[in-house]
Amino acid sequence: MEKLNALRKMLKRRGIDALLVTQPENRRYLSRYSAIDSSIAESSGVLLIPRRGTPLLLTDSRFELHAVAEAEGFEIMLYPKGLLPLLQKLLPKLGVKRLGFESHYLLHATAGKLTALASKLGIELVPLVGLIEKMRLRKEAGEIAGIEKSVLLNEQVFQEVFATLRAGQSEREVAMRIENTMLGMGAERPSFATIVAGGPNGAAPHAVPGTRPLREGEPIVIDMGLVLDGYCSDMTRTVVLGAPDQKTVELFRLVRRAQLAATNVIRAGITGREADRAAREVISAAGLGDRFGHGLGHGVGLAVHEAPSLNRRNGKKLQSGMIITVEPGVYLPGWGGIRLENMGVVEENGCRILNRDTTFLDV
Amino acid sequence: MEKLNALRKMLKRRGIDALLVTQPENRRYLSRYSAIDSSIAESSGVLLIPRRGTPLLLTDSRFELHAVAEAEGFEIMLYPKGLLPLLQKLLPKLGVKRLGFESHYLLHATAGKLTALASKLGIELVPLVGLIEKMRLRKEAGEIAGIEKSVLLNEQVFQEVFATLRAGQSEREVAMRIENTMLGMGAERPSFATIVAGGPNGAAPHAVPGTRPLREGEPIVIDMGLVLDGYCSDMTRTVVLGAPDQKTVELFRLVRRAQLAATNVIRAGITGREADRAAREVISAAGLGDRFGHGLGHGVGLAVHEAPSLNRRNGKKLQSGMIITVEPGVYLPGWGGIRLENMGVVEENGCRILNRDTTFLDV
Repeated sequence: MEKLNALRKMLKRRGIDALLVTQPENRRYLSRYSAIDSSIAESSGVLLIPRRGTPLLLTDSRFELHAVAEAEGFEIMLYPKGLLPLLQKLLPKLGVKRLGFESHYLLHATAGKLTALASKLGIELVPLVGLIEKMRLRKEAGEIAGIEKSVLLNEQVFQEVFATLRAGQSEREVAMRIENTMLGMGAERPSFATIVAGGPNGAAPHAVPGTRPLREGEPIVIDMGLVLDGYCSDMTRTVVLGAPDQKTVELFRLVRRAQLAATNVIRAGITGREADRAAREVISAAGLGDRFGHGLGHGVGLAVHEAPSLNRRNGKKLQSGMIITVEPGVYLPGWGGIRLENMGVVEENGCRILNRDTTFLDV
Repeated sequence: MEKLNALRKMLKRRGIDALLVTQPENRRYLSRYSAIDSSIAESSGVLLIPRRGTPLLLTDSRFELHAVAEAEGFEIMLYPKGLLPLLQKLLPKLGVKRLGFESHYLLHATAGKLTALASKLGIELVPLVGLIEKMRLRKEAGEIAGIEKSVLLNEQVFQEVFATLRAGQSEREVAMRIENTMLGMGAERPSFATIVAGGPNGAAPHAVPGTRPLREGEPIVIDMGLVLDGYCSDMTRTVVLGAPDQKTVELFRLVRRAQLAATNVIRAGITGREADRAAREVISAAGLGDRFGHGLGHGVGLAVHEAPSLNRRNGKKLQSGMIITVEPGVYLPGWGGIRLENMGVVEENGCRILNRDTTFLDV
């Protein structure tokens, strides 16, 4: 309700009578309705938030029970013939003259149909970008607690699987065991496709786990996250079976120093660019700046990738209550990669790291 | 190459110099590049198909190795600063005056930015809907063979898990075992979130597997599919542990009769509506027409849900080479559901069912 009220104030300020919410995490943020969209073309429902009166969740009969069970305070309406015919009836009844929509989560073709409908009804359409995302940037205490739970469960899963990691297991087999353990321990689902990349495969930051067996001595990148009560976690550890060689140890220490350097500067008021630079300088000083080809981190919340970005392009200041990843990496084609990723809360005076797992962090 | 040539002919006919392909299955159809987009906002690349010359796959560095390995005949270009800055350089170099884009798979906000860029470059934008999807409607022999393999592997998985199905196992546990078995037997991934719904939970066609233990005697709806070499399968069986009661048997037989009635009429030349009606009449004649709340079926290919729809709204004729599901169901709130789903190839003189599994089809 608080969130809805805050949103309504923003609508009022913009002279918008109702907002159509199509973005799935925004929908969940406002309504608690947790259904998953298999793609943007297969939506499990949209919210229609009038500036006054009962908010609506519009969906189809397949999701009715789910919607009724979760979207407390919302009126559930079904669209047996699709969304637009329902809007055609609903918008005039609600007296909507200016309708906001999420330009960053509506297909061009759908927007075209909505425009035709609006003009028929004499309604003005107002494209909005990132309005609710902006509300989601700074997390409330309850959200931070939820994210922390997600982080800690993810670590438990990691530790359980790490304890059984052996040379000869394939990347794919380990990734499957990680995802099964997540579900077995109560996660809703993985927050992204788990990465397990051994040796040379680790040189691609977004490696897809394959049939290659893990070997002793090589760096193994494990990047994993889960969704718990809607909130995501995201963690990377690079581990070695048996003894790491000197090169590996040196690169580990380099990446860890970069991570700590960034963690030490992150606080409310510094920019995403400054945070990124703190890590990048450490890696560049070792002559490997061009082997750290991605940004330092990203926000995490209901989405596993959300604002703010910690990279060279983001000149905006971090704010307290933001949750971010700190994940520098070094990737050497033919050899492999090392990436270390923790999540932290941006606070007035620093960055409170949510992770407790220290596996291979201090080789 | 044949597909690219066919597409180029369509571009020529429309006076389009190049086409931007953003829809993930269309991208795979033309290039074989198999990367998954976690969402429309996190693309793993787009194709740029000029009417003449080498087709391009534009992506970012994370996907470079993957792209090079798969997209034979394509030039891979990276966009370190995002897609639009690369297009700004590329389009004038390629002499593009009219650029087609997929209106049904480009966000309104992105289309806005593309429009601004195009107007700056003096390029005309041509929104297209479903151009490549139309090419994908009728499957070639090789595609049909691939889909058949996917169907048969899916059945193997079903049979393996069904053999170990016991009362007391939770829906979620069984769904996980199904998905693990898929991956263990070589599937790329499930083609959608597996449904296991026991007793009353089966009354929602899109039930989410929960912690409820399966019980003897109740109908258990299992809806599952996998992706094998890009091609999807989709099958539903409703099964009973122990002996089904009289009511269950009668409903089984009703749904199966509806399925056979539809299968018997499906052939090239009848409409999606007529196919749907054949099944619906059987269920309506039993007084349960309002308990069959969804359409009869849908196309399957690189996407698990694609055209054509078999439902009351589709008056278009089926064509040979289309692959469709035939999946009538009956859903009784409080009691449960029964759905039976097979896949078939539309042929000139009938419908060739790809499934061989007969578990509980003829109770």
